[in-house]
Amino acid sequence: MTAPDETLDVALRSWVDDAQAPGADFPIQNLPFGVFRHDYEERPRVGIAIGTHVLDCLAAVRAGMFDALSPPVRDALQSWSLNALMALGRDDARAVRRVASRLLRDDTDDGRSAHAMRDVLLVRMDRVGMLVPAEIGDYTDFYASVFHATNVGALFRPDQPLLPNYKYVPIGYHGRASSVVASGAPVRRPHGQRRPDPNAPPVFGPSAGLDYELEVAVWVCGESTIGETVPIARAADRMFGLSLLNDWSARDVQSWEYQPLGPFLAKNFLTTVSPWVVTIDALAPFRAPAFERPAGDPAPLPYLNDAADQAHGGFDITLEVWLSSTAMREQGMAPVRLSSGNLRTMYWTFAQMLAHHASGGCNLRPGDLLGSGTVSGPEKSSRGCLLELTTRGAEPLTLPTGETRAFLADGDEVILKGWCARDGAARIGFGDCRGIVRAAQ
Amino acid sequence: MTAPDETLDVALRSWVDDAQAPGADFPIQNLPFGVFRHDYEERPRVGIAIGTHVLDCLAAVRAGMFDALSPPVRDALQSWSLNALMALGRDDARAVRRVASRLLRDDTDDGRSAHAMRDVLLVRMDRVGMLVPAEIGDYTDFYASVFHATNVGALFRPDQPLLPNYKYVPIGYHGRASSVVASGAPVRRPHGQRRPDPNAPPVFGPSAGLDYELEVAVWVCGESTIGETVPIARAADRMFGLSLLNDWSARDVQSWEYQPLGPFLAKNFLTTVSPWVVTIDALAPFRAPAFERPAGDPAPLPYLNDAADQAHGGFDITLEVWLSSTAMREQGMAPVRLSSGNLRTMYWTFAQMLAHHASGGCNLRPGDLLGSGTVSGPEKSSRGCLLELTTRGAEPLTLPTGETRAFLADGDEVILKGWCARDGAARIGFGDCRGIVRAAQ
Repeated sequence: MTAPDETLDVALRSWVDDAQAPGADFPIQNLPFGVFRHDYEERPRVGIAIGTHVLDCLAAVRAGMFDALSPPVRDALQSWSLNALMALGRDDARAVRRVASRLLRDDTDDGRSAHAMRDVLLVRMDRVGMLVPAEIGDYTDFYASVFHATNVGALFRPDQPLLPNYKYVPIGYHGRASSVVASGAPVRRPHGQRRPDPNAPPVFGPSAGLDYELEVAVWVCGESTIGETVPIARAADRMFGLSLLNDWSARDVQSWEYQPLGPFLAKNFLTTVSPWVVTIDALAPFRAPAFERPAGDPAPLPYLNDAADQAHGGFDITLEVWLSSTAMREQGMAPVRLSSGNLRTMYWTFAQMLAHHASGGCNLRPGDLLGSGTVSGPEKSSRGCLLELTTRGAEPLTLPTGETRAFLADGDEVILKGWCARDGAARIGFGDCRGIVRAAQ
Repeated sequence: MTAPDETLDVALRSWVDDAQAPGADFPIQNLPFGVFRHDYEERPRVGIAIGTHVLDCLAAVRAGMFDALSPPVRDALQSWSLNALMALGRDDARAVRRVASRLLRDDTDDGRSAHAMRDVLLVRMDRVGMLVPAEIGDYTDFYASVFHATNVGALFRPDQPLLPNYKYVPIGYHGRASSVVASGAPVRRPHGQRRPDPNAPPVFGPSAGLDYELEVAVWVCGESTIGETVPIARAADRMFGLSLLNDWSARDVQSWEYQPLGPFLAKNFLTTVSPWVVTIDALAPFRAPAFERPAGDPAPLPYLNDAADQAHGGFDITLEVWLSSTAMREQGMAPVRLSSGNLRTMYWTFAQMLAHHASGGCNLRPGDLLGSGTVSGPEKSSRGCLLELTTRGAEPLTLPTGETRAFLADGDEVILKGWCARDGAARIGFGDCRGIVRAAQ
């Protein structure tokens, strides 16, 4: 836990006017990090989101705006990805955040100097391309919602929806790092093996069960070596920030291939992340207790049980899934909301996932990405994938056009949204995590 | 399939005398690539093994010995890993191989020039440290031995040893890239959750079921983009070469954690590879037919069925596991052989695994590593892990000292060996893949 600092003061205002617009994701209290490309050059640059603009960190360093920072931090801000800043760790990222806050405020000398150089320092978001913010050494996906695990388990294993290990082990598996893409990248419907008729051989062809999964992911900072563990009390130091994540899944491929070694081609064709990394510091006002385990559930084993994590290890983040079909867009309809949930309902905290990940000596590197698994809450309206919402297609959704959806159709755009809001704190948003389904090749 | 070329001529001899010693792994017909560090400098260098020596490619380029190669190839040979050469692909690696062969022969002008510069170009293997030869973007592990799958399945699922998907799907899962290490790195016994008493809660502590897995892995070359497939007829172009791989496994952790998403901490604490990449070209004389499926087994689906692959997609590689305990070493005993098998017994070829991997659009990058899964043959003497050899510990092995082993003990050294031999061709060896088990921290 980090105590709220001056950068979180709800009264702060930026000279970037739209940063304080109602419903803005990126007010001056947020300041998420990302990596972007100007439309006129190939070289990626580190940026900080403010309103509908990006603070160009390379330009800011060159202009001397970050001279208060140490040379390694300035070097990291001039690099091509966030890995260097993630390698330095949370304290240095917090130092950047403090300087950036002063630069973007409307009531400081630094802010007035920066405002005067606005054309050099700022670029409109719609003029840049956003990239995956770090080179991901390894991507791991967890399964931390007990509601999701129970709902999905009931479909795949009706006799035993929740396996005996679930309440002891933060279940996770290794995902594919190479196919993690930034919001907006097209989602090509994958081919795969599936067995629609259980009495006939499997067939190979385009998936007929394409799904999204609403997730939140944590970006790892700092480095541990092979054999080194990360005690849960120090796990928070290894968490740089959060993004939204869509773990696209081909359910028909998954159900045929997943035993005994877990999902493989059903998920490795694409994973989409929102490109802005919302720092753990920006989320300090929205820390929440860990999930309250129902009576009768075992306590976490000692290596996963930390008083501070139990008290503050959760995050109060509202998470929504929106969809628009081709027909909806053609008819000028806005996207429709499919579900709304909250990260607070997760059975395991990110600190527990991270400590578990390292508990056997697996090394974690800066830029590693750890997905939460599908965020589903107890209500039907908070189920984070179509598999659950439609009961594996048996209860299709109806869209405003009258179209129905058991799973995703070509042309469907899925939009994940996430934000934090409460009285006395500025709204902290994540930006969108989008992708449009394209027909199989 | 590449037809045997002049570099494979069994009559070739090198001016490096011990290259043609009986039983040598690295004769002039082999020329595997690796990455090493001199004992006097930090910078890794690309090398080629010859006898008990390493040809220093950086030194050779600087000395003009590789001037016949194109500038991108020479740059790749001066880089810090094999990724650049793997990015260029098999044709360029073959060109390097041809030049290196001429440099190291005892009957060419190039060879006489190189011999005269021996002190600049060669370094003794025992004077260098070997590194993981490429930065591994993603590591995937398959499960391609039907004998292993059946033996292990019988232990974990006695009612259904071999799952219905096995003979259709080259089953695989994503492994952990960060903890892949080179032969010789210590193997720290991991902690983990296990449930020795099924009627009591699980406990967290050092694994009591540490095991090795004998595997062969293929290094990927070339690059495919997201959404692009690799037809099986072109999969061989994406295979740079092979190494031995030990997929260390904590069986007690694995049996408790693996459902429903597959192995995770049971395997991600360490994976050891042999550091020399034996090229597919060097293995041309040892290509073999794909595994002959028993009558009644389905044919591979069309996307996995290629006539050339069926005819030549296998590799005739003898694979052995050796072990020495602390007591054996103290008593001056040589390691004891635990098993001997052959890669020809695998149900799936590497080309099938690679084509399957990309069949849904997952991109493959140079330096990706694809493990075969445990190589076990039909005989008990060819079982590639202790789980199988000891029937999950029920039938312990007895070592020459009288010690018994259900699973690995602290101090045990496991040595994987692999080689190809037949009349009319030079012996091609892989070098060792070693690791000594250290006590849990």
